[in-house]
Amino acid sequence: MSPKELKVYGDSRSGNCYKIRLLCSELSLDYDWQEVDILAGETRTPQFLEMNPNGRIPLLELPDGRFLPESNAILYYLADGSELFHGDSYARAEILQWMFFEQYSHEPYIATSRFLVKYLGDLPEHQEKIAEKRAAGYNALDIMEQQLGRQPFMSGTYFNIADIALYAYTHVADEGGFELHRYKNIGAWMQRICERPNYVPMASQ
Amino acid sequence: MSPKELKVYGDSRSGNCYKIRLLCSELSLDYDWQEVDILAGETRTPQFLEMNPNGRIPLLELPDGRFLPESNAILYYLADGSELFHGDSYARAEILQWMFFEQYSHEPYIATSRFLVKYLGDLPEHQEKIAEKRAAGYNALDIMEQQLGRQPFMSGTYFNIADIALYAYTHVADEGGFELHRYKNIGAWMQRICERPNYVPMASQ
Repeated sequence: MSPKELKVYGDSRSGNCYKIRLLCSELSLDYDWQEVDILAGETRTPQFLEMNPNGRIPLLELPDGRFLPESNAILYYLADGSELFHGDSYARAEILQWMFFEQYSHEPYIATSRFLVKYLGDLPEHQEKIAEKRAAGYNALDIMEQQLGRQPFMSGTYFNIADIALYAYTHVADEGGFELHRYKNIGAWMQRICERPNYVPMASQ
Repeated sequence: MSPKELKVYGDSRSGNCYKIRLLCSELSLDYDWQEVDILAGETRTPQFLEMNPNGRIPLLELPDGRFLPESNAILYYLADGSELFHGDSYARAEILQWMFFEQYSHEPYIATSRFLVKYLGDLPEHQEKIAEKRAAGYNALDIMEQQLGRQPFMSGTYFNIADIALYAYTHVADEGGFELHRYKNIGAWMQRICERPNYVPMASQ
């Protein structure tokens, strides 16, 4: 695989897409970034659905033309065997369990709240939905806080793709109305991540 | 690892828990099953939260006392390197992408509809929520139908843990009000799975 020809379809405002940018920077992988505007419906065009029938980004295109969707599967693919994903079966399964946690118990509440508040304008008709997501989002943050009280990174002893997956939407949870400053351990963990030499910030807008 | 001492905490009615039973049967792994009643709140007791702070099942306990939550991470752990999860990085990442698809785009609509209809009694106050889940659930089934029109199993060329993950709630989607008989390719795939020699059915009740 020639890393120079990797292509990532993503929306710079999306945390799921930012995961791939942060990973590629950590691993010094070159890639072409193809900006796709979710809000303009660009993931629902026939052309895009041809590449990913689920109409979601990020989407990775390999140099040989094969595609891979799902942010956390892309993290796995690009990091497999690297310093960001290694260890025995249990260590790797533990990393993956935090990535499944992220997609099931974290993202649907924290990322979606941010989308409703920041990008759809915090409209009165969305307040009930936003309120519904509050408790589950805080529950996810509570679980992270507890885990990060025991160890410096989410899984095992080293910074890995579970941290990247969870950092993406956690560090902007305040944009969805979550009081992130309440969480000391999460705060220290975010600081450790953004002090890493190859760290890149998420596009701000 | 001595497979005889594996312990699985699960509710027999749950598709996420059934995944582990089906996998262990496919791989002829012995395990102890510890029944946990979700509806009676047994995943929210202090004792259970000590084992899994996220209060969810299935939960795997290893012979050495370590725990692993998240159904799909457990599938990965138990199947890693076996006939149900192998291949190059891309093949394995493709399997995982369907497992992330299952947890993000399938389970929250199809499994949750079944829970509301079958276990909470299809109550009038849940009808709006059930209706909301309908379109996204059918979208997930449409994507599976399309994929299974191209190949006999969900990912790559062989039956693997992506099939187990998706079979669990797909084959009982009718219990949540989905018209499964509309899907010919999914029907043929389900038939292929239940004809496998080590197949075990989900507990019926």
